[in-house]
Amino acid sequence: MGGDYAPAAAVDGALLFAREHPQHTVVLVGDEAKVRTALGAHPAGSVELHHASEVVEMDEHAGTSIRRKKDSSLRVCFDLVKRGAVDGMVSAGHSGAAMAGALLVLGRIDGVERPAIAALFPSLGNNRCLLLDAGANVDCKPTQLAQFGVMGEAYVRKLLGVERPRVAVLSNGEEDTKGTALTREACALLRKSDMNFRGYVEGKDIFSGRADVVVTDGFTGNVVLKTSEGAAMGVAGMIRRAIARSGLSERVGALLLKPTLAGLKRVVDYAEIGGAPLLGVDGVGIVAHGRSSPKAIKNALVSALTNAEAQLREEIAARIAASRTWLPARSTAAAQSG
Amino acid sequence: MGGDYAPAAAVDGALLFAREHPQHTVVLVGDEAKVRTALGAHPAGSVELHHASEVVEMDEHAGTSIRRKKDSSLRVCFDLVKRGAVDGMVSAGHSGAAMAGALLVLGRIDGVERPAIAALFPSLGNNRCLLLDAGANVDCKPTQLAQFGVMGEAYVRKLLGVERPRVAVLSNGEEDTKGTALTREACALLRKSDMNFRGYVEGKDIFSGRADVVVTDGFTGNVVLKTSEGAAMGVAGMIRRAIARSGLSERVGALLLKPTLAGLKRVVDYAEIGGAPLLGVDGVGIVAHGRSSPKAIKNALVSALTNAEAQLREEIAARIAASRTWLPARSTAAAQSG
Repeated sequence: MGGDYAPAAAVDGALLFAREHPQHTVVLVGDEAKVRTALGAHPAGSVELHHASEVVEMDEHAGTSIRRKKDSSLRVCFDLVKRGAVDGMVSAGHSGAAMAGALLVLGRIDGVERPAIAALFPSLGNNRCLLLDAGANVDCKPTQLAQFGVMGEAYVRKLLGVERPRVAVLSNGEEDTKGTALTREACALLRKSDMNFRGYVEGKDIFSGRADVVVTDGFTGNVVLKTSEGAAMGVAGMIRRAIARSGLSERVGALLLKPTLAGLKRVVDYAEIGGAPLLGVDGVGIVAHGRSSPKAIKNALVSALTNAEAQLREEIAARIAASRTWLPARSTAAAQSG
Repeated sequence: MGGDYAPAAAVDGALLFAREHPQHTVVLVGDEAKVRTALGAHPAGSVELHHASEVVEMDEHAGTSIRRKKDSSLRVCFDLVKRGAVDGMVSAGHSGAAMAGALLVLGRIDGVERPAIAALFPSLGNNRCLLLDAGANVDCKPTQLAQFGVMGEAYVRKLLGVERPRVAVLSNGEEDTKGTALTREACALLRKSDMNFRGYVEGKDIFSGRADVVVTDGFTGNVVLKTSEGAAMGVAGMIRRAIARSGLSERVGALLLKPTLAGLKRVVDYAEIGGAPLLGVDGVGIVAHGRSSPKAIKNALVSALTNAEAQLREEIAARIAASRTWLPARSTAAAQSG
């Protein structure tokens, strides 16, 4: 029931997925009448319906809404994951409420201080760069950034098949003297790890292919996400105006814009590449962009499926446990008390 | 002597400026022999030469280099500004050393806690958005962010002719509950000002035309600058590949790319729009991109000229003094002791 085109985009995305993956079942969670209408005459096949009477609206407080609205589609999705009725969930709704719901219902993987939202960016040469945290935790501690590195590395290795993912910390320059106390301490921790750690990278390196995993606090990560979107859309607007001024025919103009906009879409719509996984929560949850098209929803469902099949949760649990040899006891204590 | 194409780009840029502004004099500061070679057979006209025997290299420590290299071109430029021999300076060299030199030689405007680097971004509808701090101060206090607002507002009003510039704080969402302790406190301060304050904006709004001045700490500002560059270059690469795959002729491909790359250039090369002014220092200093072309250098010189002619320094001094009615005494005390 979440997202700008709900429930139509979610329903159509689920049908796309069902057609491509007939061996799996998609459960649509939401207002039964509305979902049935959206389903229309489509053959239901491996698509099931699970009624939920409430909806978390975009302007609601993340934590409060998910606690109070026990029969919201978002909350019910997490309940289904929790009791093992489904292997993972996707939502294009309130991402803050999704993270709050994941924490409330699924809880954290043992030893994880703070789960994070991970965003996949396209980078040079058909590579991808996983940025985390993309917005869940505004204030972070060095140990949390180091754990983001561990979780992100596990994701890129298991799901993207990169053998030795290059992990880096986002900073305002490459030199060790740059950055904040947070980034410098995170670097000092990560340098002790057995991962392929590369130190600092700059904002432009998210797209340059210099790193596979880039860690940052959720404030900066969100700014990076939105700035990329703004810059890409800004370029699109300029090109549009340049074409308008050039006196080219509309047909040629459209031809000019097509590859441009396709490129922009890849930069802007991280959701197109499969939604943003919630890493560190004890279950599979994928946050899709509010503007998600049916194709984006389908990709997010594929992401949830591969996430579950690759047993990413188990991998993260193992890697977090193994990281205790180089991550100070403080984080372990914090995780145990949390 | 600074920048990737030194001294040729600086010399050619100075000549471009001299041709367009024959009533003004440009002083080229650097190695006399090298600058003379770069000047070649060009008629010198209103271009003068001032020898400086040293150069601050890009890999040097900002503060140390500017203190030790008393005859570096960068340091000598600031000396000329300080003693009133010139009305402003431009450098495409080490931007950290430029800020250090400005602080050391020129000092701060009375009452300014921390000078900032301001970067102009192109925004929707031929507007511009001034982002500060773009990298001078990694850790900031709320009063400093509020002062960035005051200085940025003065710049946009006096130099871009915007009557009531909209001032905003960069955050991870528009709601007042978003942001960090720093951004929330900065908002609380700015809300008491007599400026056209609009609260929070997101990263994408730097390009959307929703604000004329966006304030942030220097760490986040630098990440924004580099991310914009990366996203725009990323889009360019994707378009290039899309055209290559499309089977279009090279000539049509070039036609397709031209407006695109022009748009990208505007997003990426903030220096093209006139360099980044150092706001809050007691004199006119403009930092140009290291990759600056002669045209970019010329634009930066124009920026220095208009900056001096508009008496921006006096305006900032007056506005900072006036802000004492709503900015807490702490900042005043800090400024007086600093």
